[in-house]
Amino acid sequence: MPIRAIVFDAYGTLFDVYSIGALAERLFPGKGAALAELWRDKQIEYTRLRTMCSTYKPFWEVTQDALVFSCRKLKLDLTLDAQNQLMGQYAKLPAFPENLPVLQELKSMGMKLAILSNGNPDMLDAAVQAAGMNEVFNHILSVDAVRKFKTAPEAYQLGPDILGLAAKDILFVSSNCWDVCGAGWFGYKTFWVNRAGAPLEELGVTPHGQGTTLTDLRAFVEQDRNELQSQARPA
Amino acid sequence: MPIRAIVFDAYGTLFDVYSIGALAERLFPGKGAALAELWRDKQIEYTRLRTMCSTYKPFWEVTQDALVFSCRKLKLDLTLDAQNQLMGQYAKLPAFPENLPVLQELKSMGMKLAILSNGNPDMLDAAVQAAGMNEVFNHILSVDAVRKFKTAPEAYQLGPDILGLAAKDILFVSSNCWDVCGAGWFGYKTFWVNRAGAPLEELGVTPHGQGTTLTDLRAFVEQDRNELQSQARPA
Repeated sequence: MPIRAIVFDAYGTLFDVYSIGALAERLFPGKGAALAELWRDKQIEYTRLRTMCSTYKPFWEVTQDALVFSCRKLKLDLTLDAQNQLMGQYAKLPAFPENLPVLQELKSMGMKLAILSNGNPDMLDAAVQAAGMNEVFNHILSVDAVRKFKTAPEAYQLGPDILGLAAKDILFVSSNCWDVCGAGWFGYKTFWVNRAGAPLEELGVTPHGQGTTLTDLRAFVEQDRNELQSQARPA
Repeated sequence: MPIRAIVFDAYGTLFDVYSIGALAERLFPGKGAALAELWRDKQIEYTRLRTMCSTYKPFWEVTQDALVFSCRKLKLDLTLDAQNQLMGQYAKLPAFPENLPVLQELKSMGMKLAILSNGNPDMLDAAVQAAGMNEVFNHILSVDAVRKFKTAPEAYQLGPDILGLAAKDILFVSSNCWDVCGAGWFGYKTFWVNRAGAPLEELGVTPHGQGTTLTDLRAFVEQDRNELQSQARPA
């Protein structure tokens, strides 16, 4: 079966979170990179602990908790104004420059496109709006519907459920290797947008495709389609 | 009800993992601290991903995977000999110096003592043996029995099950704040041995007790006992 739909992770995959680090650096000169990194790590860590222990709360709140912890750990004085600025940045993240044209091309190839993100619906809507992507996606799925964050199977199940397709006929795309591994374990076809040039996680999962930008994803999808057409053609 | 049993986390709480960083520094001069930190973070991350996705494998293997990834990420050439040395260190970790006398005193107070660790049974047995703690513990519990790592409730449930006590009558002791939070969510009384002077995780859990070494734990248990005795005494 060819790929019939593509499900995208949001933060880091579609939306460029770099601007958060830049703002952190303006607010805490010399500490911006350390804060952005710890904040992101804690944000993800808290989603996992809350998923394992069934103590879900929305990503916006988890993100805020992670920010508060990170500033305390780094001994940075987080004023309410700084907190509002940093959190507010999540609502206006720019998309990576190649994304919109690639998404439009994939759509014109007949692909169904969806987002499946840890973000809660309000956060996602704001980011999709700010990136001008409203028209491109058939579905914007938040794990908030199942109150478990990725990599819980219940979260990945949202894709097949709404698309009416088996996971193996859906391509899952993420810049986070752990997310690619979780999706691969679940049964999706996977494509890793390895924007940072990171090594593959040692989790026994090999992505079906890999590249550094969404432009490489387009090439992968075209190749998948061409291979199937040439197989279908009589010799 | 007074505390009737104490369940301890192993790595970092009872056993000093510092020696691993020191060995890493000898093997990779200038990179030992970075390797030890990334290795530990990845080890924990992999336990969580494998727990959420029901892809359990024993802690020894997860630890090895995390080492391989960490060396690749840091561009360190991990020879088989270096790998064996680093992994072998887990089997001969020293205990913190105050531990054995404190554990013996707690035992002499009539407390049941147990270990509840992510480590698989072979790893734990070797470390307990090396630290001379065989006689002190009533039970050595590995999450391997339920094939889910902490903070999964199934892992924490091992304590009440074998001790025949409710979680609220058992004190759970860990140096890892996330472990204290998981145990607290589960229902244990908790004591955080905050050896590193870290800030409290922003997870909405406050440990019942806190200190910097196991000596502080003894004081906490004595106080718990004295308060209950004074409550029981007629005015």
